Amino acid sequence: MWGGRFRQPPDSDLLEFTSSFPTDRRLLRWDVVASIAHVQMLGATGIISASDAAVIADGLRGILADAEAGRVRVKGRYEDVHSFLEAILYRRIGPVAGRLHTARSRNDQVATTLRLYVKEAILHLVTHTVDLMDATVGRAAGAVEIILPGFTHLQHAQPVRLAHHLLGYVWMLDRDVDRLMDCYRRSNVLPLGSGAVAGVSYPVDRQRVADALGFARISENSIDATGDRDFAVELVAAAALLMVHLSRWSDELVLWASEEFGFITLADAVTTGSSLMPQKKNPDPVELIRGRAGR
Amino acid sequence: MWGGRFRQPPDSDLLEFTSSFPTDRRLLRWDVVASIAHVQMLGATGIISASDAAVIADGLRGILADAEAGRVRVKGRYEDVHSFLEAILYRRIGPVAGRLHTARSRNDQVATTLRLYVKEAILHLVTHTVDLMDATVGRAAGAVEIILPGFTHLQHAQPVRLAHHLLGYVWMLDRDVDRLMDCYRRSNVLPLGSGAVAGVSYPVDRQRVADALGFARISENSIDATGDRDFAVELVAAAALLMVHLSRWSDELVLWASEEFGFITLADAVTTGSSLMPQKKNPDPVELIRGRAGR
Amino acid sequence: MWGGRFRQPPDSDLLEFTSSFPTDRRLLRWDVVASIAHVQMLGATGIISASDAAVIADGLRGILADAEAGRVRVKGRYEDVHSFLEAILYRRIGPVAGRLHTARSRNDQVATTLRLYVKEAILHLVTHTVDLMDATVGRAAGAVEIILPGFTHLQHAQPVRLAHHLLGYVWMLDRDVDRLMDCYRRSNVLPLGSGAVAGVSYPVDRQRVADALGFARISENSIDATGDRDFAVELVAAAALLMVHLSRWSDELVLWASEEFGFITLADAVTTGSSLMPQKKNPDPVELIRGRAGR
Amino acid sequence: MWGGRFRQPPDSDLLEFTSSFPTDRRLLRWDVVASIAHVQMLGATGIISASDAAVIADGLRGILADAEAGRVRVKGRYEDVHSFLEAILYRRIGPVAGRLHTARSRNDQVATTLRLYVKEAILHLVTHTVDLMDATVGRAAGAVEIILPGFTHLQHAQPVRLAHHLLGYVWMLDRDVDRLMDCYRRSNVLPLGSGAVAGVSYPVDRQRVADALGFARISENSIDATGDRDFAVELVAAAALLMVHLSRWSDELVLWASEEFGFITLADAVTTGSSLMPQKKNPDPVELIRGRAGR
Repeated sequence: MWGGRFRQPPDSDLLEFTSSFPTDRRLLRWDVVASIAHVQMLGATGIISASDAAVIADGLRGILADAEAGRVRVKGRYEDVHSFLEAILYRRIGPVAGRLHTARSRNDQVATTLRLYVKEAILHLVTHTVDLMDATVGRAAGAVEIILPGFTHLQHAQPVRLAHHLLGYVWMLDRDVDRLMDCYRRSNVLPLGSGAVAGVSYPVDRQRVADALGFARISENSIDATGDRDFAVELVAAAALLMVHLSRWSDELVLWASEEFGFITLADAVTTGSSLMPQKKNPDPVELIRGRAGR
Repeated sequence: MWGGRFRQPPDSDLLEFTSSFPTDRRLLRWDVVASIAHVQMLGATGIISASDAAVIADGLRGILADAEAGRVRVKGRYEDVHSFLEAILYRRIGPVAGRLHTARSRNDQVATTLRLYVKEAILHLVTHTVDLMDATVGRAAGAVEIILPGFTHLQHAQPVRLAHHLLGYVWMLDRDVDRLMDCYRRSNVLPLGSGAVAGVSYPVDRQRVADALGFARISENSIDATGDRDFAVELVAAAALLMVHLSRWSDELVLWASEEFGFITLADAVTTGSSLMPQKKNPDPVELIRGRAGR
Repeated sequence: MWGGRFRQPPDSDLLEFTSSFPTDRRLLRWDVVASIAHVQMLGATGIISASDAAVIADGLRGILADAEAGRVRVKGRYEDVHSFLEAILYRRIGPVAGRLHTARSRNDQVATTLRLYVKEAILHLVTHTVDLMDATVGRAAGAVEIILPGFTHLQHAQPVRLAHHLLGYVWMLDRDVDRLMDCYRRSNVLPLGSGAVAGVSYPVDRQRVADALGFARISENSIDATGDRDFAVELVAAAALLMVHLSRWSDELVLWASEEFGFITLADAVTTGSSLMPQKKNPDPVELIRGRAGR
Repeated sequence: MWGGRFRQPPDSDLLEFTSSFPTDRRLLRWDVVASIAHVQMLGATGIISASDAAVIADGLRGILADAEAGRVRVKGRYEDVHSFLEAILYRRIGPVAGRLHTARSRNDQVATTLRLYVKEAILHLVTHTVDLMDATVGRAAGAVEIILPGFTHLQHAQPVRLAHHLLGYVWMLDRDVDRLMDCYRRSNVLPLGSGAVAGVSYPVDRQRVADALGFARISENSIDATGDRDFAVELVAAAALLMVHLSRWSDELVLWASEEFGFITLADAVTTGSSLMPQKKNPDPVELIRGRAGR
């Protein structure tokens, strides 16, 4: 439409922008895992031959092992991580690699990979949050006799025990964990088998794939399943609330460490450079990064 | 600090801004309901006399009845809805009205009122969403034989049944209801009894208040309970996802109603004026308004 | 499409949601002003008769006077402020009221009204910001000898003069004013004459209307002019940055007023109730309300 | 504070989060450029010896040349790009490298580097936007006789010329350029010389540095100058509006390319894969990425 005047080749920045590869290369592990489960099902159901399935699964396992050992050089330009995986698999096992894409489309594939990624991200967040809760409960146990001013509007209100104050944060984090696990439950649904939008015509065994990948349920509607990214938005929202809590806490620690307050002295180990508190310094980036876990 | 140069009395716009009354007057009903439960507990536990409690409760019931009948004129300027309620109660029953505030602070009061309001807002949203799901399932039942193009990137992909297409929305709404009910569960905790920040010194019977107001649980930490607004943020997030689904659907209906698509003809009743679709025209305001339900 | 199952009449909440009247009634003044300029142009160019134009203009002036004196009862349900104005004008001057809508559509009318409203909102913000800058410069003049700690990461860094500290805020506000005036310049373009999307077929004199309403320029492209709301978004963004500055300042005042810091003692007049600082207490609502100025 | 229970060494993910290096390594070029101007000023004013200044400037020029040729291996873990630059300079010229940090702090250094980066990002955006405007005007010149339906609410309203329609976008982009240049003007102020917060005690020649780096003005208040990031927020806002325009346009092209509309046929070159339009496919990421230009 734009004619000769405009149609120089797109500059390289633009090419980089349209490619999701820099972002989704972290999905590689889960794309391989999902592909192994898919191809094993294809072999088990006879949709492709058992020997082809075995060759492909072996190839994928090799890529997975190499990737986890840092031996897969992710370079070159690919549209997305799936194209990259296809290319590398082809280089390793030849044309049979093409059979991997039988009975699935890019749409249900990416939806599956993303859910696996989000499920792991949630468990990662939950594990670390529970560790923090545990440490805080332990610290509170030794702080029952320490009294500090309870503040409203930063004016002294009523005295409170440090233990009670610390346990306030534990209750906030407890809700965060609860929310994250609700999100986990809604993420725990296998979309593979939905095809591009209207399902697939092969006699796939979706339950087998769900079992292999640890999904609790199978999606019921192919149109919804290929388009649904609610679980990712929900993770972003839950992670943002978690960050609000950590940010509020960090803010308070910075205040307490001021000369004027002097409630605490931070250890040297966490005050190197000019960054007083890791969370304090960069709440937004962490929020964004965690948030992006859901993409 | 600012000396004579700046300190004219604040202009009336500013007064309006600092007052939350225009926003929180809609909380009146729930502030009265929570106050009745509180004062009945005060009487039952002997914290105030049974006769004082009865007078106050009667006064509050009268205000509630008048308010629901539209006979309470909400005018004048008050800092918030709680000040307004106190003033009107005082005018009706005199100084004994002051006893209502025994063993509670503005902080745990507003937290309780807000939770009651949010709980009702959630049930309201859920009821209407379930009605929409029900109507859509009914429409789908009659649309199994209607085939339309399934689109990806607005290009024809595979044919799909209209019933299948409509049920996709039902599944989206089903997740919305699930999310809203999770939020309801986390909202369903009574903060009253937490005082300003460090609890109250009277022997209050919090379980009695919780039972009277229909709260499933009692908050465990007074510092967290007075400050917690997570439930409101979570409602906003859940309502936003609901609106994303309705907005996507409305967008599609607008497209289908175009001369070029011509898939549907909208009834006159919903095309008056220039607004084709109620949801379509104003998704953001509704989102904002719903969102503000949580304040 | 939805059949009998769903089609009860829309409930009254929904009607309220689809109407923009509760929001845009504040545009009434500007809708009247723009209409007067429009009808005078219609009369001067002979598009309608001079006598009809005079009757309409008189009617509008009467509404304006009554509205500014608080004598226009804004009640009933209207789709928007423009429908309300038409109805009230009709009641006052009869069928000739209909000629007001000659050679304009709702689209270019609302775009014009909104620009007038935004222009005034900007000048209002600028005036108050300049007042604050002026007061701060005055306070700084008397604070040259007061030394306070300069903070980085809330740790004492280098001593600074209070005057220097205060003037830091003046520079922030100076940029805010600069940004707001840039937004004013881009808002200062008359869209009237663009019709619904493709212009009008009458020989309108747009320059005359622009001069009467104080617009510096006339829009050049009718499609862009009827759809453009950039100026409102830009006002929201500029107001948000202004609020960031005021919020930062308020945060600091709250800190300084704490027992631990004790740098300042706030006057009783600004500490009544539990709200220490008007801006501090409610930065978000003010931001939203200011932001909505652009709607 | 957290005692033995919690204090394992921070895991490597956390280290990555607290470091801004992955994000700000793109600032390297501008950090070197600003450092050359700074050290030349230090030599010219005698704050350090002319020979030391020459050695440092030569070292920096070498790094710049190598970086632009892709010969600087950016690896290892650094807190930020400035630490990385210091380390590499030290390896090349030894202890004299330390003199570079005379009369500046990390605070005014990063503020300067960021402004240089933002200024270039703005010019980059403006250049490409003007190219697009130019191409569109050219396309419009050949489209005067093509008539298409003008739409409101996606219903046919009035016929319009394709040229008129296309020029609507040109006017939108014209405002974007205007906004971006306003942002450029406010970014065009040198903060170097402001020190950490309270200025520097050396007799620096700030005007010389401003001239060397192409800044139009010098910041007046050190507290404001070290903290000001308004220009970056403003760039984000202006870029977001630009993206709104491009996204609207892309949306329309997708619609026009549908079988039902069939107004246009997209060339093969821009329909490879499943991505119909680069901008259409990923408006949010581009928005985010452009937005992050301001960090």
